[in-house]
Amino acid sequence: MEVDFSNIKVIGFDADDTLWVNETYFRNTEEQFASLLERYETKNKIDQELFRMEIKNLELYGYGVKGFVLSMIESALELSNNRISAQTIGEILQLGKDMLLQPVELLKDVKEVLRQLQGRYRLIVLTKGDLLDQERKLEKSGLSKYFHHVEVLSDKKEDNYRHLLDHLQVDVKEFLMIGNSLRSDVLPLLNIGAQAVHVPFHTTWQHEEVKIEENDYDYLKIGKLSDILGYLK
Amino acid sequence: MEVDFSNIKVIGFDADDTLWVNETYFRNTEEQFASLLERYETKNKIDQELFRMEIKNLELYGYGVKGFVLSMIESALELSNNRISAQTIGEILQLGKDMLLQPVELLKDVKEVLRQLQGRYRLIVLTKGDLLDQERKLEKSGLSKYFHHVEVLSDKKEDNYRHLLDHLQVDVKEFLMIGNSLRSDVLPLLNIGAQAVHVPFHTTWQHEEVKIEENDYDYLKIGKLSDILGYLK
Repeated sequence: MEVDFSNIKVIGFDADDTLWVNETYFRNTEEQFASLLERYETKNKIDQELFRMEIKNLELYGYGVKGFVLSMIESALELSNNRISAQTIGEILQLGKDMLLQPVELLKDVKEVLRQLQGRYRLIVLTKGDLLDQERKLEKSGLSKYFHHVEVLSDKKEDNYRHLLDHLQVDVKEFLMIGNSLRSDVLPLLNIGAQAVHVPFHTTWQHEEVKIEENDYDYLKIGKLSDILGYLK
Repeated sequence: MEVDFSNIKVIGFDADDTLWVNETYFRNTEEQFASLLERYETKNKIDQELFRMEIKNLELYGYGVKGFVLSMIESALELSNNRISAQTIGEILQLGKDMLLQPVELLKDVKEVLRQLQGRYRLIVLTKGDLLDQERKLEKSGLSKYFHHVEVLSDKKEDNYRHLLDHLQVDVKEFLMIGNSLRSDVLPLLNIGAQAVHVPFHTTWQHEEVKIEENDYDYLKIGKLSDILGYLK
């Protein structure tokens, strides 16, 4: 499709599954969680119940690993009809700690893309989740030096973006967001008059999935992050 | 003591136990937690063990209710030698949810103080803890309208403040912080060249307590928030 990024001065990058691997760790943890509970329910039922619990608790806990662990524990109680052992609860806590201690695995060409854009654009990171965990991942990633600003948002809805761009004194017409989630990184931006690029990751959390008529929205979809360089000459 | 606030243009307010009640809810929850475990240990031992666990997990979980709940669960497993029932774990999860759903109780004269300072100073909220929870409390408090900016920090150390003031383009010499914690709201500010006012709350979390020679630091201590108005004419 035809896109015109000539106005763009500021580029926002989503972090999880755009700069580094994230969803894969959640999926692996869900596998391990299902193994811990296999005597009580089928894998399929466990997955469904955990997802239902996460969504039920989302408004209260928000995004991020800590809320996910609390939802795993609550699901374990329900799925086992309170027969789950204290030891297994301890194993679930440990699954959460392992996630928080996980090394950061950068996606392909991320450093090169940031290196080439740095200086030509103001680059910022816009992510959601646990504040400390996201700061720690950025630190571990070695990418901090490329960014003017890092913002951890409690959610990524239109108002969150509007408020942030206002605070950073960025004109929406000069802002481009790049991320893997149509729901969080693309649609709200288009709705407030900014531009957005979709870089799908191979795995998407069910909650982030949206069904849209692709023709209804005007955004660029690229196969890998480095493809963006061809559009930002 | 003699203080000179004539340079001050921006005032930062801590939120928990400065604008609204917080530590009291943690203490009440600790009481309920100890009751749930009374068959295993003395109240004193339970308190000590929970505090030890919170500090052990602080680097990983950060501040806030969700990490506190995860630490309560881990303590319950340890204190009971894994004999704790699933049902009791469910009750601990509920204690956490109750904390997150707690109404916000403003401290005395907070609205009046903010109303009088608004317009004369740029007012900001600087708090630490869970991002979503702090945003929710500010929303419930009805105080948002008084503030130019709200920042939830992962910690309140010198570097966090330095980085934030830099981002907000605030000169340290023009910044005054007001809060109940010497450790988080006063000392780091004095160390970076800003000013700070200490308004003690009747209850302080053990982790926030510091022993200092009062004469070594130059800051104002006031008995209640509204006392600040006398110094900011």
